[in-house]
Amino acid sequence: MRVLGIDPGLRNLGWGVIEAVGSRLSHVANGVIHSEGTDLAARLLSLHAALTRIVAEHAPDAAAVEQTFVNKDGAGTLKLGQARGIAMLVPAQAGLAVGEYSPNAVKKAVVGVGHADKGQIAHMVRYQLPGVELAGADAADALAIAICHAHHLQSAGRMAAAMRGVA
Amino acid sequence: MRVLGIDPGLRNLGWGVIEAVGSRLSHVANGVIHSEGTDLAARLLSLHAALTRIVAEHAPDAAAVEQTFVNKDGAGTLKLGQARGIAMLVPAQAGLAVGEYSPNAVKKAVVGVGHADKGQIAHMVRYQLPGVELAGADAADALAIAICHAHHLQSAGRMAAAMRGVA
Repeated sequence: MRVLGIDPGLRNLGWGVIEAVGSRLSHVANGVIHSEGTDLAARLLSLHAALTRIVAEHAPDAAAVEQTFVNKDGAGTLKLGQARGIAMLVPAQAGLAVGEYSPNAVKKAVVGVGHADKGQIAHMVRYQLPGVELAGADAADALAIAICHAHHLQSAGRMAAAMRGVA
Repeated sequence: MRVLGIDPGLRNLGWGVIEAVGSRLSHVANGVIHSEGTDLAARLLSLHAALTRIVAEHAPDAAAVEQTFVNKDGAGTLKLGQARGIAMLVPAQAGLAVGEYSPNAVKKAVVGVGHADKGQIAHMVRYQLPGVELAGADAADALAIAICHAHHLQSAGRMAAAMRGVA
């Protein structure tokens, strides 16, 4: 199963694709989309086009997007929300269910604690995806979101299998 | 010139289309899109599809979206931002430039003061677009945004014409 993780941002949107076979994870691709354009609508259009190309190229089976807001900064949160709207829309347009995880849930899944810093996240992403070359911190976060979602789907799958066993 | 105004919201998105011929405005259509679906991605997909149909049906020449955020409520602002991302994207995908106006700028353009309430806005929208039947408060706000944008484009056009006269 291919899992796409997205770390949304209006100027820099991180993305990462991993392959999950049972509990084994491997790296497929990662990158950062830098939106182009002088106004907001052009930037959103540019994000939508670039992310649509990535989904078409890597054909993920599942997707997840980080859920966060900027504390005490309405304008910043609104900007992030607009980028996040595009990040949720594109996989939905490809027919995928889109998971959502808080930053703490992602950190806990990847590092083991909810208070990890960017360096620890990149370190654990490199450890769990041997040979990966990270396109940047946003791409590392996106791969961490994909890993978190893969763990979640795997647990859900085990639970479904266990329940089928009981039934 | 046909102008589309959008009052973005995740559950209820108001829209309105007016025709501007010189300084004469007339009503074309208005409505409220109620997003469907149990999760966020499905709601955004539903908003995108409905708004895309409206743009295709009414073929506006210009569009504008209200710019606002929810004070002191990060989660509310993030939700609004996601809907607003879709509201900006759809006209941009149709090749339109998308104007942005603060609620106060819209009120000032339509009512004459920046502190008008919803009732005053609806009243002035009915006055400026004789015969209009409003689909709801969100649709009235959307028509007010379209009126504000039409005024702005008209002033900009007059200024450009004046500057051509000087050159």
